Amino acid sequence: MTARLRAHQYGKAETRVVRIVRDTPRHEIRDLNVSTALRGDFAAAYLDGDQSAVLPTDTQKNTAFAYAKEHGVASPERFATLLARHFVDDVAPVSGARVDVDEHAWVRVLVDRAEHDHTWVRSGQEVRTASVTVDADGTWVVAGLRDLTVLKSTGSEFRGFLQDAYTTLPETTDRVLATSLLAQWRYAGTELDFDATYATVRSTLLSTFATQHSLALQQTLWEMGRAVLDAVPEVVEIRFAAPNKHHLLADLSPFGLDNPGEVFFAADRPYGLIEAVVVRDGAPDAGSAWTRSVGAP
Amino acid sequence: MTARLRAHQYGKAETRVVRIVRDTPRHEIRDLNVSTALRGDFAAAYLDGDQSAVLPTDTQKNTAFAYAKEHGVASPERFATLLARHFVDDVAPVSGARVDVDEHAWVRVLVDRAEHDHTWVRSGQEVRTASVTVDADGTWVVAGLRDLTVLKSTGSEFRGFLQDAYTTLPETTDRVLATSLLAQWRYAGTELDFDATYATVRSTLLSTFATQHSLALQQTLWEMGRAVLDAVPEVVEIRFAAPNKHHLLADLSPFGLDNPGEVFFAADRPYGLIEAVVVRDGAPDAGSAWTRSVGAP
Amino acid sequence: MTARLRAHQYGKAETRVVRIVRDTPRHEIRDLNVSTALRGDFAAAYLDGDQSAVLPTDTQKNTAFAYAKEHGVASPERFATLLARHFVDDVAPVSGARVDVDEHAWVRVLVDRAEHDHTWVRSGQEVRTASVTVDADGTWVVAGLRDLTVLKSTGSEFRGFLQDAYTTLPETTDRVLATSLLAQWRYAGTELDFDATYATVRSTLLSTFATQHSLALQQTLWEMGRAVLDAVPEVVEIRFAAPNKHHLLADLSPFGLDNPGEVFFAADRPYGLIEAVVVRDGAPDAGSAWTRSVGAP
Amino acid sequence: MTARLRAHQYGKAETRVVRIVRDTPRHEIRDLNVSTALRGDFAAAYLDGDQSAVLPTDTQKNTAFAYAKEHGVASPERFATLLARHFVDDVAPVSGARVDVDEHAWVRVLVDRAEHDHTWVRSGQEVRTASVTVDADGTWVVAGLRDLTVLKSTGSEFRGFLQDAYTTLPETTDRVLATSLLAQWRYAGTELDFDATYATVRSTLLSTFATQHSLALQQTLWEMGRAVLDAVPEVVEIRFAAPNKHHLLADLSPFGLDNPGEVFFAADRPYGLIEAVVVRDGAPDAGSAWTRSVGAP
Repeated sequence: MTARLRAHQYGKAETRVVRIVRDTPRHEIRDLNVSTALRGDFAAAYLDGDQSAVLPTDTQKNTAFAYAKEHGVASPERFATLLARHFVDDVAPVSGARVDVDEHAWVRVLVDRAEHDHTWVRSGQEVRTASVTVDADGTWVVAGLRDLTVLKSTGSEFRGFLQDAYTTLPETTDRVLATSLLAQWRYAGTELDFDATYATVRSTLLSTFATQHSLALQQTLWEMGRAVLDAVPEVVEIRFAAPNKHHLLADLSPFGLDNPGEVFFAADRPYGLIEAVVVRDGAPDAGSAWTRSVGAP
Repeated sequence: MTARLRAHQYGKAETRVVRIVRDTPRHEIRDLNVSTALRGDFAAAYLDGDQSAVLPTDTQKNTAFAYAKEHGVASPERFATLLARHFVDDVAPVSGARVDVDEHAWVRVLVDRAEHDHTWVRSGQEVRTASVTVDADGTWVVAGLRDLTVLKSTGSEFRGFLQDAYTTLPETTDRVLATSLLAQWRYAGTELDFDATYATVRSTLLSTFATQHSLALQQTLWEMGRAVLDAVPEVVEIRFAAPNKHHLLADLSPFGLDNPGEVFFAADRPYGLIEAVVVRDGAPDAGSAWTRSVGAP
Repeated sequence: MTARLRAHQYGKAETRVVRIVRDTPRHEIRDLNVSTALRGDFAAAYLDGDQSAVLPTDTQKNTAFAYAKEHGVASPERFATLLARHFVDDVAPVSGARVDVDEHAWVRVLVDRAEHDHTWVRSGQEVRTASVTVDADGTWVVAGLRDLTVLKSTGSEFRGFLQDAYTTLPETTDRVLATSLLAQWRYAGTELDFDATYATVRSTLLSTFATQHSLALQQTLWEMGRAVLDAVPEVVEIRFAAPNKHHLLADLSPFGLDNPGEVFFAADRPYGLIEAVVVRDGAPDAGSAWTRSVGAP
Repeated sequence: MTARLRAHQYGKAETRVVRIVRDTPRHEIRDLNVSTALRGDFAAAYLDGDQSAVLPTDTQKNTAFAYAKEHGVASPERFATLLARHFVDDVAPVSGARVDVDEHAWVRVLVDRAEHDHTWVRSGQEVRTASVTVDADGTWVVAGLRDLTVLKSTGSEFRGFLQDAYTTLPETTDRVLATSLLAQWRYAGTELDFDATYATVRSTLLSTFATQHSLALQQTLWEMGRAVLDAVPEVVEIRFAAPNKHHLLADLSPFGLDNPGEVFFAADRPYGLIEAVVVRDGAPDAGSAWTRSVGAP
């Protein structure tokens, strides 16, 4: 037989852990979706069906719940780090662990303008993400967000582009620019105030998107990345994947109406998709920080 | 042949209309998903394939865009009313029109703590809805929201319920209560400050959910409905469909840990589904206010 | 207080029950998504938080699993009927029950051209539905399907339609017609060979869609409905909601290419939505057959 | 400034191209979702907002439609290859192109047991995928499928696994095994009968899943991979990501019922996720075959 098992990993995906802190009447909530993946000496499970080295994914799920109780959830990054280190340190066959945590945000309900102690409403569509990898070479912490949907109604143009035989797009000096941002950034260290840093990155992304006159979504991504590196020294790399959510000017001329940037059709598909990786000069090596999956390119 | 066409309607669903007001440097945005359905004398289109009375759904879409330009979007309810009346008044074969509008909310991006003039971020998962029906008997305006996801970490119990041979659920005096609320309310009139009224209803729903000690989700719905009728005289009826988004206490006892309401598994399916219709005494007849579809029960 | 509880129901939605029959080496599978809703004397649960008449939704879920074991799943319609009757007959406060069952289809994997005994692959996107209502007036059985996506590449036209100031759509004598069909049909009785009848209705819908030259989707729905009533005497009413999944001819003229119905852009939104209700003359009254929800219009 | 643009790509995602061949009364259909991504000398677009090297994503979309007309769609792999080569060969600043094509399957409607000439019904949930990368080093063709949902009701066990303090899972010698398979395989060459090869790989995957007694999903993946390499010499590597779609035995003991593998609860989340990469000894280097995205790990 000439086949060889080149790479593998396994784990439990999307364990929905909700942690309430109720030590005082003012409760706190952290609402997580936890995915763990283990790497190591598991070849026998594939080649021979021998499970003796395999920590069941069910156990990984149990561990996520138990750790939420025992260690709390100081932040998604901290929780993911604790969990990943546990698997590598305490489970013999595990040589590497990757833990991805999505956090759903809640804000307190206002009652007579005061924040309620134990009632929340889901806030925003965006999801905060943390991805921690631990292996023999160290610990990598990647923070991020997805589905941060932003739109600017002016301050965006797109012109001067390459033309070929298949080009029909007109140039424009004033368009709607909208995207649903996926951004992930790598930290140099593992001991940060992750919540505060997240807030700084998020607000930097938003204010740069707002104030940077855009010649293209590409340029906007670069400027957002550069601004984050400027604002947060601990960030050494940031990656973007940004769909250009096209808002097409409705053609109202058949009805005798002009449309100077007022009425748009928000299209679903297709969409432009722009990606960029911005890195700080002298950034430490990324190691396995960005390896989420071996089987799903 | 013994078959008969008993009912029918047709229209254009989910036209994504984005309206920007840019008369001053501080732009405004309304982001709508518009569905129109026409009722009337269209039997020949079904029985004989005769389209002479049929206003194409493509034309309905065009009309939505043109109306967004010509009349603006003062509110989803107002926009839906204008559109519905146009179809009934101006298109001869149309005797009834139903217009459903979903509105997606945006909030201004903050730059140095100030609201930006022309940049927004999508706010919340919840969707504001307006459903207007116009026919020979009048105009009905139904406002609403869906996907308003709320959670309280205490102040909810469930006990004293009926037991039969298939009952295994333990009673509880302290649980997490969470739902993703669908609420729709009918107005007595058609001339209101719809935006202000919407805000009042929404805040009444939230504060009642927060402050009402819950003996069951059923009771909470009733209290929310009653509170809305109390707070807003123009509302004559409110309808709820509320999934009980179960948060199951994680069993940590195998690991020697207790779990006094701190760690939960947020389950996807199945979920309880509680429905209630609360009406004001003496409410005017609902007519066709609640008829969205004839073919999709 | 002037508010009144006009209507209510509650239940357990989307219990995913998979039933394997393994009495012989050739196993059988039925894969169901079961939703139960109870109506009756539950006002105290809403008004006073008194649960003494309330059979928990958790118990309803348990009952679905237990019934799958005790009674098997002869068909979705039969299973829904047994469950609905149980709630009405055996649980005192229940006066009406509605059970909706979705069935996901599986086909046997072929190994060397032979059907495998215990391995299946999911078949199709379409979902078979059964909706049974039991109350003091009787039992109503509604069968159906959704997401039956069909397309014809010719044999469809759309012309001769009403024109107004907002009409821009060109007429066409040859277009792609595609829809994702929702159809639900009501049976006169409650004792049928439900699987065989379902197969007959489905094949009648498909063959009528294929062979009926279409002057409009409206006409196609009518003809499909009429054909089903002709083919299956037990069907007394059929309801359709059919999105017109627009396939827009790609404009290739800028590239010097003609496009005689060969290359299309499949659009997501908006879409036409056509509904029709076709009933047999002399059909028995529908009672509460079509009432799925009281809170979600 | 110390930031650097390390990597980037851009393109048009999810262009829905439907190609009808109607040269004879028996039409053919190919229904594609096409995503193109270009790599090359586009740094100025990011750094300076200079678009002079940028072929708009709108043009890429146009090209997909035009190529569907001019060259037809012999297979998704062939179509993707033509498109990728065009961008690299004909558009000066492009040094690499990645084209991902999803194909949705349709089967002919049967009318009186005969296949209809121009009417189809959507077949299956699974999606066939083709991913072609062209750059200076060559052309890589990866074929695949996703959402191939399979289930076996016996012939699967899971026992002998590692136990730690968080393990509660009981061992089992007979369980339901189900997954929704993602598989992608790399070809050695670029000139194959892609449709025939796809069919062979798919049937090999299915029959191996059916007939291989499973000691774990890991082992099943390995055996499926090995079987594909055995069956199809042109395949040099295959990658899997397989969610273990847990079917949990319903606990019916409170109701006095046993449940010997007959009634299951199909759980949504969490799920195991098993990944494996199986490669042929001596396989040529993968180059950029597996690089789909630079920004979305």
